[in-house]
Amino acid sequence: MGTPVAPEHPVSFAPPGSFANTLKSDLKETFFPDDPFHQFKNEKPARRLTKAIQYFIPIFEWLPNYNFKLFRYDLLAGLTITSLAIPQGISYAKLADIPSIIGLYSSFVPPLIYAVFGNSKHIAVGTVAACSLLLQSTISEVASPKDDPILYLHLIFTATFITGIFQTALGFLRLGILVDFLSHSTITGFMGGTAIIIFLQQLKGFFGLKHFTTKTDVISVMHAIFQNRKEWRWESLVVGVTFLLFLQVTRYVSKKNPKLFWVSAIAPMVTVVVGCLFAYLVHADKHGIQTVGDLKKGINPPSIQFLNFESKYLPTVLKAGIITGVIALAEGIAIGRSFAIMKNEQVDGNKEMIAFGLMNIVGSFTSCYLTTGPFSKTAVNFSAGCKTAMSNVVMAVSMGLTLLFLAHLFGYTPLVALSAIIMSAMLGLIKYEEAYHLYKVDKFDFVICMAAFLGVAFISMEVGLMFSVGLALVRALLYVARPATCKLGKLPNSTVYRDIEQYQDSANIPGILLLQLGSPIYFANSTYIRERILRWIREEQAISDSEGNILEHLLLDLTGVTSIDMTGIETLVELRKTLQVNDIQMAIINPRIKVMEKMITSKFIDVIGKQSVFLSVNDAIEACRFSLRKSKQNNDTTEGPVAV
Amino acid sequence: MGTPVAPEHPVSFAPPGSFANTLKSDLKETFFPDDPFHQFKNEKPARRLTKAIQYFIPIFEWLPNYNFKLFRYDLLAGLTITSLAIPQGISYAKLADIPSIIGLYSSFVPPLIYAVFGNSKHIAVGTVAACSLLLQSTISEVASPKDDPILYLHLIFTATFITGIFQTALGFLRLGILVDFLSHSTITGFMGGTAIIIFLQQLKGFFGLKHFTTKTDVISVMHAIFQNRKEWRWESLVVGVTFLLFLQVTRYVSKKNPKLFWVSAIAPMVTVVVGCLFAYLVHADKHGIQTVGDLKKGINPPSIQFLNFESKYLPTVLKAGIITGVIALAEGIAIGRSFAIMKNEQVDGNKEMIAFGLMNIVGSFTSCYLTTGPFSKTAVNFSAGCKTAMSNVVMAVSMGLTLLFLAHLFGYTPLVALSAIIMSAMLGLIKYEEAYHLYKVDKFDFVICMAAFLGVAFISMEVGLMFSVGLALVRALLYVARPATCKLGKLPNSTVYRDIEQYQDSANIPGILLLQLGSPIYFANSTYIRERILRWIREEQAISDSEGNILEHLLLDLTGVTSIDMTGIETLVELRKTLQVNDIQMAIINPRIKVMEKMITSKFIDVIGKQSVFLSVNDAIEACRFSLRKSKQNNDTTEGPVAV
Repeated sequence: MGTPVAPEHPVSFAPPGSFANTLKSDLKETFFPDDPFHQFKNEKPARRLTKAIQYFIPIFEWLPNYNFKLFRYDLLAGLTITSLAIPQGISYAKLADIPSIIGLYSSFVPPLIYAVFGNSKHIAVGTVAACSLLLQSTISEVASPKDDPILYLHLIFTATFITGIFQTALGFLRLGILVDFLSHSTITGFMGGTAIIIFLQQLKGFFGLKHFTTKTDVISVMHAIFQNRKEWRWESLVVGVTFLLFLQVTRYVSKKNPKLFWVSAIAPMVTVVVGCLFAYLVHADKHGIQTVGDLKKGINPPSIQFLNFESKYLPTVLKAGIITGVIALAEGIAIGRSFAIMKNEQVDGNKEMIAFGLMNIVGSFTSCYLTTGPFSKTAVNFSAGCKTAMSNVVMAVSMGLTLLFLAHLFGYTPLVALSAIIMSAMLGLIKYEEAYHLYKVDKFDFVICMAAFLGVAFISMEVGLMFSVGLALVRALLYVARPATCKLGKLPNSTVYRDIEQYQDSANIPGILLLQLGSPIYFANSTYIRERILRWIREEQAISDSEGNILEHLLLDLTGVTSIDMTGIETLVELRKTLQVNDIQMAIINPRIKVMEKMITSKFIDVIGKQSVFLSVNDAIEACRFSLRKSKQNNDTTEGPVAV
Repeated sequence: MGTPVAPEHPVSFAPPGSFANTLKSDLKETFFPDDPFHQFKNEKPARRLTKAIQYFIPIFEWLPNYNFKLFRYDLLAGLTITSLAIPQGISYAKLADIPSIIGLYSSFVPPLIYAVFGNSKHIAVGTVAACSLLLQSTISEVASPKDDPILYLHLIFTATFITGIFQTALGFLRLGILVDFLSHSTITGFMGGTAIIIFLQQLKGFFGLKHFTTKTDVISVMHAIFQNRKEWRWESLVVGVTFLLFLQVTRYVSKKNPKLFWVSAIAPMVTVVVGCLFAYLVHADKHGIQTVGDLKKGINPPSIQFLNFESKYLPTVLKAGIITGVIALAEGIAIGRSFAIMKNEQVDGNKEMIAFGLMNIVGSFTSCYLTTGPFSKTAVNFSAGCKTAMSNVVMAVSMGLTLLFLAHLFGYTPLVALSAIIMSAMLGLIKYEEAYHLYKVDKFDFVICMAAFLGVAFISMEVGLMFSVGLALVRALLYVARPATCKLGKLPNSTVYRDIEQYQDSANIPGILLLQLGSPIYFANSTYIRERILRWIREEQAISDSEGNILEHLLLDLTGVTSIDMTGIETLVELRKTLQVNDIQMAIINPRIKVMEKMITSKFIDVIGKQSVFLSVNDAIEACRFSLRKSKQNNDTTEGPVAV
């Protein structure tokens, strides 16, 4: 404190860099913001190769340092997630209307692939409810799971393959930016809506219905349940409610005491085992309680020969593959990142995309369907103390053993037990508190969230998703189309200038209007900016008149303007013309490097003259004060409000 | 100069305003940025009513003060534009494949409507080439102008009606913002591309072809011309080239000497008159030179009974109406604004939309097709010295007289003369220099422009337009998704901190990393911002290490951040967590009012503590210096580079 104000530093009018350099740095900022190659600099070729292999195939990075102590943790975590993978695999496969065994296959091969290529330490690979239902509702448009289950299943494999190719391509093209456009609010709403419709779908199992709708929206589902009242079975309902209560109680226990996380983690497995025993002992199917039915022994058979690219199915399969691919990525990457942050680690989104993509490509060759890093399983993996992706290997091995020796036993699982497991999982996905928090903090975010929620619940999953993403994009464009401008005033006893709305004790500067512009200035907002500035001037002139001053200077603080285009520059030229007619001088303050470059190339600087460009607000104010002609001269340069 | 640095001013932590107030002010900024009602404030009710009428029907504003002196100018301008309106009306109607007389009708009713409701003084109403061709290519998809000319014409009227409704609705809903998204680059490219294809289409008339393609792209048109080589007529070609040369010479004369603007303005009329005489005298149609043919005497017959809303045509008609409506608005508003700026006047885009809309609605009832404020006619009107919209009235009256008494004479006009008029007009619309300027100043703008140009020329007008607008939107989203961040350094001999890349003599601050963020922080860029900041920290740590310092503080200057959403705030929280683990303190500087409000509501301020929020960079630096523990203490607070 106590430094004298320094003399003016000259404004930099350095000529812009070459186009090639600018393009290179722009592309780098757009696609490689994390500078992934920084670690390869200044390394010897051999070391660089090792590093590159480690970079692209992360298992080579952590496996050499792996030891038995870490393995103990991963073993425990791996076994815990296996106990979750079996019931979830069977349940979600039911949701996708494919044979239950496919759900188990999907926890065998994909986790092995992820362990090699994935760079999150906490993700547990598995199938997810939302994507299972979305696949079912999309693919069943062209192939009926009832009438032609073979074709239907093959199209599911094909969609998984498309997802894999799409995800890998996004990763290689460094297009993680696309996933960024799925906002947290959209995902919250989408998950909540999906949870509701999946929950309601399970009522089919609860009531033991044989007829049901293929639609997913709330109204159709409720209608189907009440229309088929005659099929309701109380036996099924009793068993279901019992299981659901059991699962919810274990969830409550784990929530109250985080150390008991394993209680809720193994509860689904307990449900399945108890359900199987119960079904076996009481011959449940004779009492209206349906079971899963035959499960073949043996690990994944190849399915590469089943991929079906017939042109009549291709558009639907592409749609299903790409939409589920985006959702699966958004869920998997978001979750991987959240847990990495807790441990202060980094997850590279583009590498994760490649890992997920490869896992789905190989999955589609080996009788698996869409997998990602689901929230519930990953959370259990994290709580169980996993240290590396080895826990996925443990899960895969246990699942392989299960498939070889135990699979057939799960054939006795009552469908109603699976319904209870799904319902319990879904109840955990509806985040009332988060929605309420959004409502409190940001109404637009809340609307985006509700658009996804209501759209999914009452229309369809795609519509809800697109509606919500559309709103989010409109918001993004509105940010750009209507940038904030504010008038700055001088804070008392300082040389600091701040928004007069925010700092109400800041003082007007007689004869000078100082505006701070938002960013950027370009075609979509240039008309707005010009009209808004003219309005500021009109309002300022009214104030000046009432004080006997005359507005002589307009100062535009461009500190917040990160970019400008041709239309933006033309707007400034036009604005200056309009002002000149009214005898107001225009000057600009602190144009940033990109803006300055464009102003130089377009000769704007030559038009307004270098003397109208200032480095700081203070410099500009001093220069203007010096040239004020008609207003009351204000020589009080040291401090204090000059007029209010 | 010479003021001591002022003592710290406290940061304002004022609680946010009520939701209703915020919403109201946001809506006002979005839809009423020009504050159109400011003139009604503080007025008596009677005066307010008068003002309101004058506001919505501008003729009441200027007509009471109208006098004969002004009329002299408007009369001259009105007659000049009539001489342009007749040949252009006939030509563009041919382009739209409708009877030529419709083109003349369209310069009778619409200008009268515009004179009442329009608020630009310079716009001359008329039909435009691009929209005429676009209407033709769209409507001919469902109705053939050859086989069913009546239906085709009725659909053109219907599309005009839709355009009118659409434009009026946009105006009332204050959605001028939509037109803002058609950038100058897009319009330049679109106009150039359209000019090329319209120019090539005229070769049909030049070569006297009877068979031609209905497609508009360059390749199909060139193919059609060469395929029908047998039909080529040299007579037609000679006459055409002669007229085109004449028109280009007059254009050159007017360009060289702006006072002779009337030479090029009346040249088309001269061409038509000479053409008629020539055709009449030599019986041109017997020599392979086709003429316009019968033109009925009399003014516009009603056409409201012909509007056709049959569902099989409706989608196409809606598409045609809306796309041409947007293009016509973009052209009309942009041109009205450009001329208003020259005269230092304002044009209200939303009011213009209503005026254009009403003009097209009434036009569609009275046998007119799509009209707007075309560039060429408006420029002539302006050069001819028009003072008010009265010049449109003069044009309408002259056109009415022409229709009543002279129309049939124009039936002798050779088609090749019309082709020459169109070609000459089109040559003026290809702005090589503008494209080159874009290329020099802004490569992305150039790409947007070329996308429209090449898309229109080689694919179709809609595709070109959408492709270009799509690119412009991607650019807008990229601005948002990849905001600029920069590291600030201290300028020598000052207390000013600026981008170290821009001001290369600015100095590092030991132990402190000062970053300036772009705007806004929200879901689409939060991941980027976090990764980019972590990269800045990594780079800074490398520099600090080499200097024996330790990075202890991260200061984020939020001056440029106009907005933040929930995801953005969560990102800052996560960032802070990551930093704490690395023993780096995070502080924020000068959050603006909207950002501060959200930080308070979301409890972010409570999390980081009010002591971590600073009003200015200087305050923050001083506070941090005080708490630096491990770095070399830097007591040199007065000036100079401290380390580089």
